[in-house]
Amino acid sequence: MSTSVIILAAGKGTRMRSRLPKVLQPLAGHPLLGHVINTAKKLNAEEIITIYGHGGELVQNAFAHENVKWVEQAEQLGTGHAVKVTLPVLAKTGISLILSGDVPCITEATLQKLLDASAQTGIGLVTLTVNDATGYGRIVRENGKIQAIVEHKDASEEQRKIKEFNTGIYAVSNAKLHEWLPKLSNNNAQGEYYLTDIVAMAIADDLEVASVEPERAFEVEGVNDRVQLAALEREFQAFQAKQLMQQGVHLIDPARFDLRGTLTVGQDVRIDINVIIEGDVELGDNVEIGAGCIIKNTKIEAGTKVQPYSVFDSAIVGEDAQIGPFARLRPGAKLAAEVHIGNFVEVKNTTVGLGSKANHFTYLGDAEVGAGSNIGAGTITCNYDGANKFKTIIGDSAFIGSNSSLVAPVTIGHGATVGAGSTITRDVADNSLAVERSKQFAKENYQRPQKLKK
Amino acid sequence: MSTSVIILAAGKGTRMRSRLPKVLQPLAGHPLLGHVINTAKKLNAEEIITIYGHGGELVQNAFAHENVKWVEQAEQLGTGHAVKVTLPVLAKTGISLILSGDVPCITEATLQKLLDASAQTGIGLVTLTVNDATGYGRIVRENGKIQAIVEHKDASEEQRKIKEFNTGIYAVSNAKLHEWLPKLSNNNAQGEYYLTDIVAMAIADDLEVASVEPERAFEVEGVNDRVQLAALEREFQAFQAKQLMQQGVHLIDPARFDLRGTLTVGQDVRIDINVIIEGDVELGDNVEIGAGCIIKNTKIEAGTKVQPYSVFDSAIVGEDAQIGPFARLRPGAKLAAEVHIGNFVEVKNTTVGLGSKANHFTYLGDAEVGAGSNIGAGTITCNYDGANKFKTIIGDSAFIGSNSSLVAPVTIGHGATVGAGSTITRDVADNSLAVERSKQFAKENYQRPQKLKK
Amino acid sequence: MSTSVIILAAGKGTRMRSRLPKVLQPLAGHPLLGHVINTAKKLNAEEIITIYGHGGELVQNAFAHENVKWVEQAEQLGTGHAVKVTLPVLAKTGISLILSGDVPCITEATLQKLLDASAQTGIGLVTLTVNDATGYGRIVRENGKIQAIVEHKDASEEQRKIKEFNTGIYAVSNAKLHEWLPKLSNNNAQGEYYLTDIVAMAIADDLEVASVEPERAFEVEGVNDRVQLAALEREFQAFQAKQLMQQGVHLIDPARFDLRGTLTVGQDVRIDINVIIEGDVELGDNVEIGAGCIIKNTKIEAGTKVQPYSVFDSAIVGEDAQIGPFARLRPGAKLAAEVHIGNFVEVKNTTVGLGSKANHFTYLGDAEVGAGSNIGAGTITCNYDGANKFKTIIGDSAFIGSNSSLVAPVTIGHGATVGAGSTITRDVADNSLAVERSKQFAKENYQRPQKLKK
Repeated sequence: MSTSVIILAAGKGTRMRSRLPKVLQPLAGHPLLGHVINTAKKLNAEEIITIYGHGGELVQNAFAHENVKWVEQAEQLGTGHAVKVTLPVLAKTGISLILSGDVPCITEATLQKLLDASAQTGIGLVTLTVNDATGYGRIVRENGKIQAIVEHKDASEEQRKIKEFNTGIYAVSNAKLHEWLPKLSNNNAQGEYYLTDIVAMAIADDLEVASVEPERAFEVEGVNDRVQLAALEREFQAFQAKQLMQQGVHLIDPARFDLRGTLTVGQDVRIDINVIIEGDVELGDNVEIGAGCIIKNTKIEAGTKVQPYSVFDSAIVGEDAQIGPFARLRPGAKLAAEVHIGNFVEVKNTTVGLGSKANHFTYLGDAEVGAGSNIGAGTITCNYDGANKFKTIIGDSAFIGSNSSLVAPVTIGHGATVGAGSTITRDVADNSLAVERSKQFAKENYQRPQKLKK
Repeated sequence: MSTSVIILAAGKGTRMRSRLPKVLQPLAGHPLLGHVINTAKKLNAEEIITIYGHGGELVQNAFAHENVKWVEQAEQLGTGHAVKVTLPVLAKTGISLILSGDVPCITEATLQKLLDASAQTGIGLVTLTVNDATGYGRIVRENGKIQAIVEHKDASEEQRKIKEFNTGIYAVSNAKLHEWLPKLSNNNAQGEYYLTDIVAMAIADDLEVASVEPERAFEVEGVNDRVQLAALEREFQAFQAKQLMQQGVHLIDPARFDLRGTLTVGQDVRIDINVIIEGDVELGDNVEIGAGCIIKNTKIEAGTKVQPYSVFDSAIVGEDAQIGPFARLRPGAKLAAEVHIGNFVEVKNTTVGLGSKANHFTYLGDAEVGAGSNIGAGTITCNYDGANKFKTIIGDSAFIGSNSSLVAPVTIGHGATVGAGSTITRDVADNSLAVERSKQFAKENYQRPQKLKK
Repeated sequence: MSTSVIILAAGKGTRMRSRLPKVLQPLAGHPLLGHVINTAKKLNAEEIITIYGHGGELVQNAFAHENVKWVEQAEQLGTGHAVKVTLPVLAKTGISLILSGDVPCITEATLQKLLDASAQTGIGLVTLTVNDATGYGRIVRENGKIQAIVEHKDASEEQRKIKEFNTGIYAVSNAKLHEWLPKLSNNNAQGEYYLTDIVAMAIADDLEVASVEPERAFEVEGVNDRVQLAALEREFQAFQAKQLMQQGVHLIDPARFDLRGTLTVGQDVRIDINVIIEGDVELGDNVEIGAGCIIKNTKIEAGTKVQPYSVFDSAIVGEDAQIGPFARLRPGAKLAAEVHIGNFVEVKNTTVGLGSKANHFTYLGDAEVGAGSNIGAGTITCNYDGANKFKTIIGDSAFIGSNSSLVAPVTIGHGATVGAGSTITRDVADNSLAVERSKQFAKENYQRPQKLKK
């Protein structure tokens, strides 16, 4: 049976106190709605229909790259109304999952269970059982079968003791949606069309309403304000951390680990406190990431040790390299195996060959460094002339003296040596020495400046 | 009715194991007593009387700038005695709030409620109801009215089940204090004068003792050792974090956020993990503060992004600037809009004009940089001659080549260019190029030094 | 009575999903087994016998420096079998503590209590009482005396309500071990030899089985996977943090503090958030460690303030120094009193004399700096010629201009001055000025490079 996914994403989210529509607020670095769309994609949904309202253009732009049908809910007349506006585009057959753009952590597994459970009767919902369900719509059962969903305010004292409640996530056959939704009424105190009413219609039609519970409660938690957003962020992070630990990652403190994307790991990866992983990151066997590192869209091969407070973005690091502390790898940094990049070193759009070292205070930008070369402390590739950027080529086994300035475009040959403190503007031949330096001048008994009177 | 505030601050705090008097221990970067004095000031107290004892000079010096009357309690003869020593300076009319210098989180709101509740009968206290009040003085009530405060050791089994206890925070009319305190007796096991006894006197006088409860329990928590201090620090920080989230701040992890002062925010401010805010900080709309930043006494205008591990003190940053990672702004750094300050860059007592950039390894000290200028990597303003500091002036649209040393006092004109690796000691005219460089010397087939035998 | 310690360390730890044997997994930076061996040493054990199995060579190598007898358990036939294989080397007299290599936090105090309690009857065990002991072997008592240990699966409904369970830590007289262990049977469902059975033998012999409980539950927690390892790491860290606070250390957030070794402190030490202490660290009175610092094997004397994000390894820092932020002290950094080391400064194998300053972007490697000297921003000691390292000597009261390169071996005399931007290759005499610099060249109306068309 083909699956449609309908996502309610029209709410403004006033309590977030933000200019951003609520479903664009990020959880783990990714918009709330993006989490839901990603889950829908994992389910191989035929169609993903998203109902937008407030900030609709912003929302659509944020997901312009996704294959999503957008349906506007111009007025917010309730959840039933929201789903009703999708009918003109909704498939006539198959089954729909009805999700919320602000309930980001629902998993593929729970939804698959819901689909399976609902396939036969054409309607099912996700419920949750908690100690105190105050405020929620209770699930009233008889002999295990769902008889009704009773909103808190309408519930009897006895019903209020029910611990199972409706999370608002449904699977409903499209045929039934086309049949039921036009019949919804707004004849109630709020004057809204409630999606919940289709459950009563199903029961009236003698259909059995299926239900499943999620494995973890936070899957069905919604976000209405920053306090809830922060709480859910922590639950989601704790969940991710636990999954990584179960895969064998040694997290020194799972409460101080943030994964904002996807982390692929080899065996015996160790991650110290306060590391942030962003985007797609891959860490090979025995990789160690020191405290406070921030690693984004980067691949690090086996055996490499990254010392604390290193910040990487879109870099590739080979095996058995040693990086940091306080190293910055910017986009296009490609380090071969056994490279050493030390403290206060910045590498951008630069390849560094096998075993080369830049251990202190160096800027390598738009450069190609060969294998076995040593870049002295304070070396700067002067890649920018104020208008254009040029390349610096350094061969194998070169030695660049400290505090050198390499004015690009320039090539330092294989085995070449640059004297400390030189500004190199012309190419240096293989195996030659280049020095740019004046005679050292001395003045005996020099009288140093005195403190001026003010 | 005029309000006096009496603060008990004479305790030594032996269990802190510190040379510092207890009330000077910091919570959220500010001495315990300072929190209480600040709250007293918010209540527009007519007079703030602080009773000092141990380390009295240190305590008075720490608050020399505050309008506080200091009264010495030379011997520690109990809380009643402490308040009694204030009588010679205490106003004859009005009402006194009696606070503790080591209960720092009591709020203006709770104290105002206490004052309101106590205004009529002239005596009231703050109580707290908890599940287990073991150790505390229980509030014995009859028909809701306070009948007695019974210390734990004197309490019957039945009384020990009482969950409401006396927090030791009182409001008492000054007339009553002048009447009751001289009558206190130390005829008890400890030989101390207990302030609690005035409650019995009030009841004996047929006065109704008012009471209020604080909104949050931590308001009445006292600090006796480092474990309690750390616990209260976290409760206070969590409270502050929640308030900021309710204002719309996106805190990625409220448990990893420290505010040690006052934070004023615009809309959609995002603060990543482990940020510390100190002193008075103002962040405009859409400002983003990266992980691990430490921002003190700084104003950052709308749209600016601060990347991780940047440390600011007494700086001003304009709109839409990009700062960090690993940037250091020291006192007097004033950055205009759209300025870029990159990694490992230090700025001190320097103005930087609209859109200028210093992206790598730069020290700007005592400088004025115009608009649209580019400061190359490794540039250093040599502002200090060993005795005096001088200014470096850089005009608009200047280009300073990498690894340059600008020896102050020196002026680089508008549109001027400095060649990489130059040491500039003389002024550079507008639109001119200045280079300090020797001829690049080459030696072919250079024999590099060999490893020495040891 | 002499004490033997028998440590079970043969398990593979499959659930850790690691190539490392389980007992080598680190807790607080130290292998699990190392914690147990250290505790055994504190008890002045006559002999420490460790039973190895999986990864035995790795395990033995890791503790090659310890005085440990290694006994192989080639097949894993149960805990009773493990101890039985030690009999050939185990002393005939005295008493044995039987510990687990994956229960690292058991304390000397608890074990001493166990030894004392077991001395008379020759057998005792550590038990723990919890709310729900599901899964554990229950301690069945009559009139307070241990009657049996009943495994969960064998327990009656009544027995399953028992909250006291066997932690698997025993003290047994060696004579009894030699008598009982050969009699163990593997006639059970698993076909294993259970050490627990010796308790039944003791009871059958009418011996009273002693028992003690640990002061804290985490002492007897075992580690089977990364989730448990991380949880125990936090409990251990919280315990260490509390101990330090009770000694008077001001920890701003005990949940964000990691001690991986030993910290010795003076009075009024303040440690901000996210500090990591490794190895042996000593902090004098009033030392302040800023947020995010990582301090390893370092001694810091009284009054020194370390600003955030400083990373020290094997350094010594004198009194009243000011270091950081972003300072890196590497092995052999020895700073005298009142030294200032500022941001982005790296010091390696270098002594710095009283009150000298290197405030910005400096690399001091293999150097000796006298007292009262000032090292300008961007100064680099060029200690490496590509093959050898040489020393830089800087005298007292020297002034090194910014962006200087000091090419070692080189000596800068007392009171000498080096001009900014100089590359110094020859010694500089006392009180003289040395400059290496060309004439500053100017070109008026310079036409800067234009953006190239691509």
